Amino acid sequence: MTTIAFAKGHGTENDFVILHDPDARIAVDPSLIRGLCDRRAGIGADGVLRVARTRALVEAGVISAVPESVSPESWFMDYRNADGTTAEMCGNGVRVFAHWLASRGHVTGRTFDVGTRAGNRPVSVGDVTKRQATVTVSMGTPTLLGVSDCMLGRTTMTGLAVDCGNPHLACVVPGLNLDGLKDLAVDAGFEFDRDFFPDGVNIEIATALDDNDHAFMRVHERGAGETRACGTGTVATAVALLADTGRTCGHVIITEPGGSLEVTITDDGAATLTGPSVIVAEGTVDTQMVTDWRGN
Amino acid sequence: MTTIAFAKGHGTENDFVILHDPDARIAVDPSLIRGLCDRRAGIGADGVLRVARTRALVEAGVISAVPESVSPESWFMDYRNADGTTAEMCGNGVRVFAHWLASRGHVTGRTFDVGTRAGNRPVSVGDVTKRQATVTVSMGTPTLLGVSDCMLGRTTMTGLAVDCGNPHLACVVPGLNLDGLKDLAVDAGFEFDRDFFPDGVNIEIATALDDNDHAFMRVHERGAGETRACGTGTVATAVALLADTGRTCGHVIITEPGGSLEVTITDDGAATLTGPSVIVAEGTVDTQMVTDWRGN
Repeated sequence: MTTIAFAKGHGTENDFVILHDPDARIAVDPSLIRGLCDRRAGIGADGVLRVARTRALVEAGVISAVPESVSPESWFMDYRNADGTTAEMCGNGVRVFAHWLASRGHVTGRTFDVGTRAGNRPVSVGDVTKRQATVTVSMGTPTLLGVSDCMLGRTTMTGLAVDCGNPHLACVVPGLNLDGLKDLAVDAGFEFDRDFFPDGVNIEIATALDDNDHAFMRVHERGAGETRACGTGTVATAVALLADTGRTCGHVIITEPGGSLEVTITDDGAATLTGPSVIVAEGTVDTQMVTDWRGN
Repeated sequence: MTTIAFAKGHGTENDFVILHDPDARIAVDPSLIRGLCDRRAGIGADGVLRVARTRALVEAGVISAVPESVSPESWFMDYRNADGTTAEMCGNGVRVFAHWLASRGHVTGRTFDVGTRAGNRPVSVGDVTKRQATVTVSMGTPTLLGVSDCMLGRTTMTGLAVDCGNPHLACVVPGLNLDGLKDLAVDAGFEFDRDFFPDGVNIEIATALDDNDHAFMRVHERGAGETRACGTGTVATAVALLADTGRTCGHVIITEPGGSLEVTITDDGAATLTGPSVIVAEGTVDTQMVTDWRGN
């Protein structure tokens, strides 16, 4: 019987299977990832976070070279989508990744670097226990692309187009409150300007900021439909919310179906995202059974 | 930190969290069940199988009395749906329940009784390892109710109405092959005769038996939509498949999206269902985190 250790956790209810594999010894092939993420025949998750040393991943041929800005000795988030493909970065995943390292004694301090395929991501872990933590991640500098429209059913909404490494259209809707936001058919998807967004776009719909710089938001992700929360979408929405109140920097709190996140945008335009991580279970999983229980 | 041991398994991809709790000490309230079954913030499952002694469940007030035909000393399947409600019986769940007992040394033989809210269920466990088993469960005697029609889109199908403790309309469609079955919009649901089935009905669509008494089937369950497999629906379909070939007893193999199941109907009309069980993972889960990670 082949079993491996795993943990399961989530960041604002975007959920992950964690595989602790410092020396990159686990054969993380697409069939294993799909099996682990299968919500009925496996554990079930949106993705897998393999926790390995950068150098070990290079030596194992998982990544072809140490990415620029990443130290070979750093921990590296080898992120896999549920379909078995790799992803460069995941804003919710990196919080759970950092929580795992800080809560299980794999790093000494509370501020450290995480290597990703998108480069180095400095993180800071607070309020840490084995079960929960609050993690701040550097999200780079979002770029304002202009103004565009989208349509939900027969309603036109106007938003700011923001590049956070991926394209967003963040729409702050005047007069919209939480009940109105809940009533929108965000899950049905949007029409948008395909000349403006030739590769598609993630669309956020938000209420305006209240007096405490707090807003509510829902998100429709390109290729995934509505999700419980989106890290880069939260940053894009923060840019739009601040712009809506005449600011280019500041601190906002955004509550999504999966929980609340905080964004700080500094004078120089750099964004940090702060949010929760939860680890709910640990155990061992039978890799053969999740991969092919029918014995094909 | 409050953690409890759990396992995760499935029967033809109907999946369950197993809680081994002989003395019924775990406070299995609806919020814990919903949290464990939450597919993003919890473990994720269709239901929970609490493994306890019948007598302990009575003493804990979980069941008001020992059901008729159940021994107080027997193991009892305290089944909970993902929404926190109880269910009398689950044909896929009882296989996983029996597999758990037989593979972890909690019973001595391979044939034993499982108590359920629907009464005693004799089971027989074969080919048993920690990870897999083939389990046969007595499913009682299905009752033929007559013939009725249903409509899928604009297509009318005729089936046998069969009571297996719950109502079924099992339609064997002449000339339908596997490709044709896959193309049907079974997930969209059916129109049916509401005078015949005032409480709704589970509908099965099956190909005719081939020369090896094998057929393919899909099922739309009342209140749940299309599922990967249905134990009682498999028995109902076996009755219809045998009737379709002029028989009232016999042995058939039915392949559903979640796997293959075998049904034997004896001369006296009693049915047994044989199918796989898989246990994929074991570990500990944080009950507070799955119940309320937001700390409400």
